[in-house]
Amino acid sequence: MGIENSRILNEDLKERIVTAETAASWIGDGMTLGLSGFTKAGDLKAIPDALVKRAETDPFKVNVFTGASLGSDIDRMFAEADIINKRLPFQADPRMRQGINEGSFHFVDQHLSHTSEMLRQGVLPEVDYAILEAVSIKEDGTIIPTTSVGNSLAFAMHAEHIIVEINEAQPEALEGVHDLYAPAPQGQREPIPLVSPEERIGTEGIQVDPAKIKGIIFTNQLDSPSTVTPPDAETRDIAGHLIDFLKEEVRLGKLPENLVPLQSGIGSVANAVFHGLLDSDFEHLQVYSEVLQDSVIDLLDAGKVDFASGCSVTLSEDKMKQVFSNIEDYRDRVVLRPQEISNHPEIIRRLGLISINTAVEMDIYGNVNSTHVGGTKMMNGIGGSGDFARNSRLGIFVTKSIAKDGDISSIVPFVPHVDHTEHDVDVIVTDQGYADLRGLAPRERAGLIIERCAHPSYREQLHDYFEAALERGGQTPHMLEEALAWHREFETNGSMKKLVKS
Amino acid sequence: MGIENSRILNEDLKERIVTAETAASWIGDGMTLGLSGFTKAGDLKAIPDALVKRAETDPFKVNVFTGASLGSDIDRMFAEADIINKRLPFQADPRMRQGINEGSFHFVDQHLSHTSEMLRQGVLPEVDYAILEAVSIKEDGTIIPTTSVGNSLAFAMHAEHIIVEINEAQPEALEGVHDLYAPAPQGQREPIPLVSPEERIGTEGIQVDPAKIKGIIFTNQLDSPSTVTPPDAETRDIAGHLIDFLKEEVRLGKLPENLVPLQSGIGSVANAVFHGLLDSDFEHLQVYSEVLQDSVIDLLDAGKVDFASGCSVTLSEDKMKQVFSNIEDYRDRVVLRPQEISNHPEIIRRLGLISINTAVEMDIYGNVNSTHVGGTKMMNGIGGSGDFARNSRLGIFVTKSIAKDGDISSIVPFVPHVDHTEHDVDVIVTDQGYADLRGLAPRERAGLIIERCAHPSYREQLHDYFEAALERGGQTPHMLEEALAWHREFETNGSMKKLVKS
Repeated sequence: MGIENSRILNEDLKERIVTAETAASWIGDGMTLGLSGFTKAGDLKAIPDALVKRAETDPFKVNVFTGASLGSDIDRMFAEADIINKRLPFQADPRMRQGINEGSFHFVDQHLSHTSEMLRQGVLPEVDYAILEAVSIKEDGTIIPTTSVGNSLAFAMHAEHIIVEINEAQPEALEGVHDLYAPAPQGQREPIPLVSPEERIGTEGIQVDPAKIKGIIFTNQLDSPSTVTPPDAETRDIAGHLIDFLKEEVRLGKLPENLVPLQSGIGSVANAVFHGLLDSDFEHLQVYSEVLQDSVIDLLDAGKVDFASGCSVTLSEDKMKQVFSNIEDYRDRVVLRPQEISNHPEIIRRLGLISINTAVEMDIYGNVNSTHVGGTKMMNGIGGSGDFARNSRLGIFVTKSIAKDGDISSIVPFVPHVDHTEHDVDVIVTDQGYADLRGLAPRERAGLIIERCAHPSYREQLHDYFEAALERGGQTPHMLEEALAWHREFETNGSMKKLVKS
Repeated sequence: MGIENSRILNEDLKERIVTAETAASWIGDGMTLGLSGFTKAGDLKAIPDALVKRAETDPFKVNVFTGASLGSDIDRMFAEADIINKRLPFQADPRMRQGINEGSFHFVDQHLSHTSEMLRQGVLPEVDYAILEAVSIKEDGTIIPTTSVGNSLAFAMHAEHIIVEINEAQPEALEGVHDLYAPAPQGQREPIPLVSPEERIGTEGIQVDPAKIKGIIFTNQLDSPSTVTPPDAETRDIAGHLIDFLKEEVRLGKLPENLVPLQSGIGSVANAVFHGLLDSDFEHLQVYSEVLQDSVIDLLDAGKVDFASGCSVTLSEDKMKQVFSNIEDYRDRVVLRPQEISNHPEIIRRLGLISINTAVEMDIYGNVNSTHVGGTKMMNGIGGSGDFARNSRLGIFVTKSIAKDGDISSIVPFVPHVDHTEHDVDVIVTDQGYADLRGLAPRERAGLIIERCAHPSYREQLHDYFEAALERGGQTPHMLEEALAWHREFETNGSMKKLVKS
């Protein structure tokens, strides 16, 4: 019990070590589970398998609430085992996506800052079990999270019972990296005191009544590594245009030389942008984001970023090794917070972030679809993009100008699903260029977006639509009978390209 | 100069009294003007006429920035005189609306909390002249606003010059009702210290360098009165359902007995809801809203509301007389703030408001169109509805279930314009009933909205669409070729009702 002793400092709790199978047996049909995990970091390593195994002989369904997407194949396994009734607030697994779109279970797509607030308000089903990965449990029962915080604090506060997975593969040195803070209920709430990304306003762990901890399981398995897609020609061009825009803002005196705190969604485009910053002249940058990926570590290593705040750290295998062997190097430059704080409108607006998020497609007036393929099929979810775009100083959306070898234009007349309205979209960047939409009316936006951001092979088609729509008039001119024709054309004929006019 | 002496306490400034014609002559072609005024309250009474008169012989165009819509026919006159290049962030005048939809000038439809921030960031054209209505100017140059604050503080801070209209018809006793607070620039900003609706955090007037005040004009004319539509059968039903919902929340322990601070948009439905509260058992209510209308005064008079915070007070003729003759009765129970503060995400989320706003239409999944008739023609603008719905504890949207004698259903398969996405719409209320959408997935929402909120004459048609769309699958099932058919049907045949099936 040597290692166990160093990882559990509360004597009573040592009596509650159980197997994953035993813990899984406590979960009843119809219950609601709050699981740790945010974008593949800090998720559970043992209980999900045990639940799936149990379901083979003893079928049940549960609501599964998390921070964001889960790694370790949990979402795939859960979808395959058909044990989910309702899942929220985000996912990114192909098999789970299939289940969602088939209607096998319900998926509630939420702003990532909203879930904790809704638990506090009592308007979501009550959490029966919070099941949280930890590096250790302190004498007073405080749970030290691992590589993500996500919604774990809220789950622990509002759950009836808590089960902890102590993961010995997660370094104990992670203790001290977290900053746990929960706003008081609305009506009794003071301002959240955070005024800069590096400040700490809370505790180092999740403080709970030890009596609520019903069981503890030991695991020893690293987070499933993130796969980093290296920049390609288009994402490199997007990064180049975005950095040109930022340089121009600095030149005009609209942004300070070291910019303002940066937020970036995940994925290959965001990764390319952060790599672009590595090669830029910008220095003393700050990051105030959700997920800290490899590129943020690279920027810290290069001395480009002074400080990074997130709610999870999701790394590739090599980067994880590097960081875990040198945690002391990062401890004073990284903090992990609850997603309610990393994504809180109050903080985002106060700090005045530059937020960079990926769109599936956008229309000629700047409305953005970031979730629904073809307007109906869920991709991943809105995630934090709404929290950030609405409240940032600069809400930037990026996408490649075309997809599917050019059969899809990412700039369309009309988006078949809206996640971000034109009011929240300040700048659009594609491999073709950037369009600064701030202070522009829809009719001004259209020309700029088509000329600067659309792929040349679609510009004429887009101009034709806009010109014809203009004849109908309106603040936001459209032809309703043609508005969705491009998407229907793709559904029917596999391409948005119309027959070339003779 | 007796009255002038009591209204201007700074000796130097008394030398700057000019005629409206002189002040109008200072305005050059291409300039940007920041005008006081929010929803018919505290707008200018002399300079707009003088500008329009000047344009008859000396044509020019200017950008016109305001708090929200203007009264005193200013927006109509400006549109008719064709002196506008760009107008923001909101309007509500039929003639101006016509100009916008014809494309005669640009209208930038903004979240009402965003304009001040954009001025501070330097991303809107610089304001050449702030032209502000005042009750008086103090010795140190402090300008005491009249019946609205709107964006006046931001205009005064960022304008090169200031012109003041001192309106002798506005009672001097309004001094002390305002609370002027401007957040520091992002990056140097402390938390906004407001933690309850009745707190005062700023100054009683707009503090400016007197040197910036270039001219002062005296006027003597009341605000144009608001027209209050009395509740009809449908709006009374909406109010009844909404109050039933709130009572149920209290019964379930999800809301306290005196609720939480209320925000309401303007218009007949909102008015009916507030009248409904008058007849309810609720007591010790608080209002934290934009516009304070007659119904808020009635609630204060009835002892139902303890305190009301807004950024303007827009009253009918009778109510204005009553309030102006008894200002002392209201002084300690009303405060007027900048719209940046009344609508600030930080405050709205902290206080946890109930927000009630009117929709033009909503789709079966809960996406709301609150601005664009037929998806293209601007009605008024998004106003504060986005600031409130996104950040409130309860984002409620209300509308009559049908319009145009039943030829339009306000619940449609697909909205042709989205202002509020399903993520921000918690509860929908129509004359038919209410649908509590919190924590529900789109497929769960559809059934509820159709059954509880749609007019019976459209329910079957809506169910047919939803059932057919379900066969295609997806998180948000749709048939793109049919999605906008209802709106096309109305455009073509004047009704959304399809031929009755035999």
